[in-house]
Amino acid sequence: MTSARVAAIPGDGIGTEVMDSAKAVLARLLPLTGDNIAWTDLDWSCERYLTEGALMPDDGLGLLREHDAVLLGAVGWPGVPDHVSLWGLLIPIRRMFQQYVNLRPVRVMEGVPSPLRPDLAEGVDLLIVRENSEGEYSEIGGRFGAGTPVESAFQQSVFTRTGVERIARFAAERAERRRGRIVAATKSNGIIHTMPFWDEVVAETTAHYSVETTFEHIDALAAKLVLHPARYDVVLGSNLFGDILSDLAAGVCGSIGIAPSANVDPTGTYPSMFEPVHGSAPDIAGRGIANPVGMLWSTVMMLEHLGAARAAGLLMEAIAETLRDPATRTADIGGTADTAAVTDAVISHVTRSAA
Amino acid sequence: MTSARVAAIPGDGIGTEVMDSAKAVLARLLPLTGDNIAWTDLDWSCERYLTEGALMPDDGLGLLREHDAVLLGAVGWPGVPDHVSLWGLLIPIRRMFQQYVNLRPVRVMEGVPSPLRPDLAEGVDLLIVRENSEGEYSEIGGRFGAGTPVESAFQQSVFTRTGVERIARFAAERAERRRGRIVAATKSNGIIHTMPFWDEVVAETTAHYSVETTFEHIDALAAKLVLHPARYDVVLGSNLFGDILSDLAAGVCGSIGIAPSANVDPTGTYPSMFEPVHGSAPDIAGRGIANPVGMLWSTVMMLEHLGAARAAGLLMEAIAETLRDPATRTADIGGTADTAAVTDAVISHVTRSAA
Ligand SMILES: CC(C)[C@H](C(=O)O)[C@@H](O)C(=O)O
Ligand SMILES: CC(C)[C@H](C(=O)O)[C@@H](O)C(=O)O
Repeated sequence: MTSARVAAIPGDGIGTEVMDSAKAVLARLLPLTGDNIAWTDLDWSCERYLTEGALMPDDGLGLLREHDAVLLGAVGWPGVPDHVSLWGLLIPIRRMFQQYVNLRPVRVMEGVPSPLRPDLAEGVDLLIVRENSEGEYSEIGGRFGAGTPVESAFQQSVFTRTGVERIARFAAERAERRRGRIVAATKSNGIIHTMPFWDEVVAETTAHYSVETTFEHIDALAAKLVLHPARYDVVLGSNLFGDILSDLAAGVCGSIGIAPSANVDPTGTYPSMFEPVHGSAPDIAGRGIANPVGMLWSTVMMLEHLGAARAAGLLMEAIAETLRDPATRTADIGGTADTAAVTDAVISHVTRSAA
Repeated sequence: MTSARVAAIPGDGIGTEVMDSAKAVLARLLPLTGDNIAWTDLDWSCERYLTEGALMPDDGLGLLREHDAVLLGAVGWPGVPDHVSLWGLLIPIRRMFQQYVNLRPVRVMEGVPSPLRPDLAEGVDLLIVRENSEGEYSEIGGRFGAGTPVESAFQQSVFTRTGVERIARFAAERAERRRGRIVAATKSNGIIHTMPFWDEVVAETTAHYSVETTFEHIDALAAKLVLHPARYDVVLGSNLFGDILSDLAAGVCGSIGIAPSANVDPTGTYPSMFEPVHGSAPDIAGRGIANPVGMLWSTVMMLEHLGAARAAGLLMEAIAETLRDPATRTADIGGTADTAAVTDAVISHVTRSAA
């Protein structure tokens, strides 16, 4: 039995709706498996920013640190610039908590129509391992000569040996438990000076594991993920390449609405954070029609991380059952069910299979 | 009637095979339309590098400058590191000739099976306009502390006002002649300091044209190009984003083997260069089975650029006719024809329609 403290940050828009769904499901599931979560509910959001001037309080990170995990809905709202909402919450958590792994499983699920021809979509089961702390996303950069004809903008990418080694190790450990194959996204054939270094360190590091590592240039890899995605197992990418490839792969599997993610500190020093890949979706917010599956699948990842393996398994099975039934699919995946109907279906599946 | 001097660089592997195809087709086509090309045949290649120590002679660029266009097969061969083959030929030509536009039309062609479901593939007709001279591909970068635990690698992206303005103008001019819509790839929601600048300059510049410009984050855009590619018209990308998106779009349309590209200096100061998107393909080189369509379509772009509109039109029509016939498709697009059979078919189509 697992007993954990989890900080819940619903955030904005549909973030709050899918958080309600996750909490409702867990309220029924956990007693069945004898697990327990003590929740801390946090209203950190763009709404808070607009009224109180900050997305989270000054000691926000300190407060989160006292938890075993963070469950996040989605943060962002029209009227609050992206750099404010991201730098006020998401990015500081990822960075300060050394969540250097962004883990994004992508699978074709029965009931979720892939845009690909059925023969190509069959059997797609990828784990995207994205470096989450350095690389192309660095604080170093800015603008020169603003307002003049020679105005220019700069961005420095930074890849460190420590940073590349640790993400490569993580990918190799996961690949060993899967089909043993890593494809690392690169662009070492051109002019990008960081990429030959990335290739070297990834190759050296993964050579110590029972895995096969190959490299594909990001351009060719993007095409191949559409032409024959089922050939891939673990896809390892830098911060930017992993970002692009994980959305692409979610598209290949039919919807961003079902895609989960985990921001993990594998050392366990800090809490890890779990969040759906989708955003706050202002266009459909407040209507109760958001797809909660991305959030529920992220919750599965959180339960696994917390050691609640049985609860995680039951929930994943219930998600799959729910997607299989046309009556319990939301509009983004071709159905007409609302968030509550999907949530109820998941609850009744977990209740039934735990019985 | 057009009379032009063209430098032909077949390069390596299947580059030489598809170049033969293009020259055979032009030898029959141009007399029919009253156009003329004076060829300069150049053996610049990895083979030349291995025997003479350089891919091209010292005065290579000076020699090319005396031409109206460059037609390139593909350069690269196992045993010659990519950075050698690229920096010895392709990159210097793009840079020194200020070919700041990389133009990549991508269309679903009848007879080329898209990996997408037929309803989604229907009507896809994109023009990818890629910035080709700056951005993420810059000479500034390198390695620190090699061989030590703190080893790290750096890459500086550089975006200039001049560079962004000119590519945005080019995209807007093309969009005005098409469906009037530009989607610019960005990543201005996070931490990449160059991207808000890119967005600003693209928005300002294209505001002077009769086009609608919207921005999409590269991750979401990659997914949407798979989920509903037919919604897009002109896609404008930085050097790296354009590189990724154009291969991805070619994948969505079924094959990199048919994808053409043009490296253009729109000022006309320097010759522009036309090349298929595919590489030298050592795995199938020498067997006469390469798909020549990427090269032939690139030749269409060259003919348009040289002002030989009728020849360009006839050739494009002949390519479409050839793809429509299952008997004249190569293996990469599900057929069994060899390069010669495809070439012959294209020749007989142009001969027939010019008659
Ligand atoms: C080979 C490589 C450097 C090149 C590029 O990225 O420009 C290629 O992918 C292309 O698109 O022409
Ligand atoms: C919002 C953005 C900065 C973020 C990222 O690129 O990391 C998002 O796309 C994600 O993948 O979590």
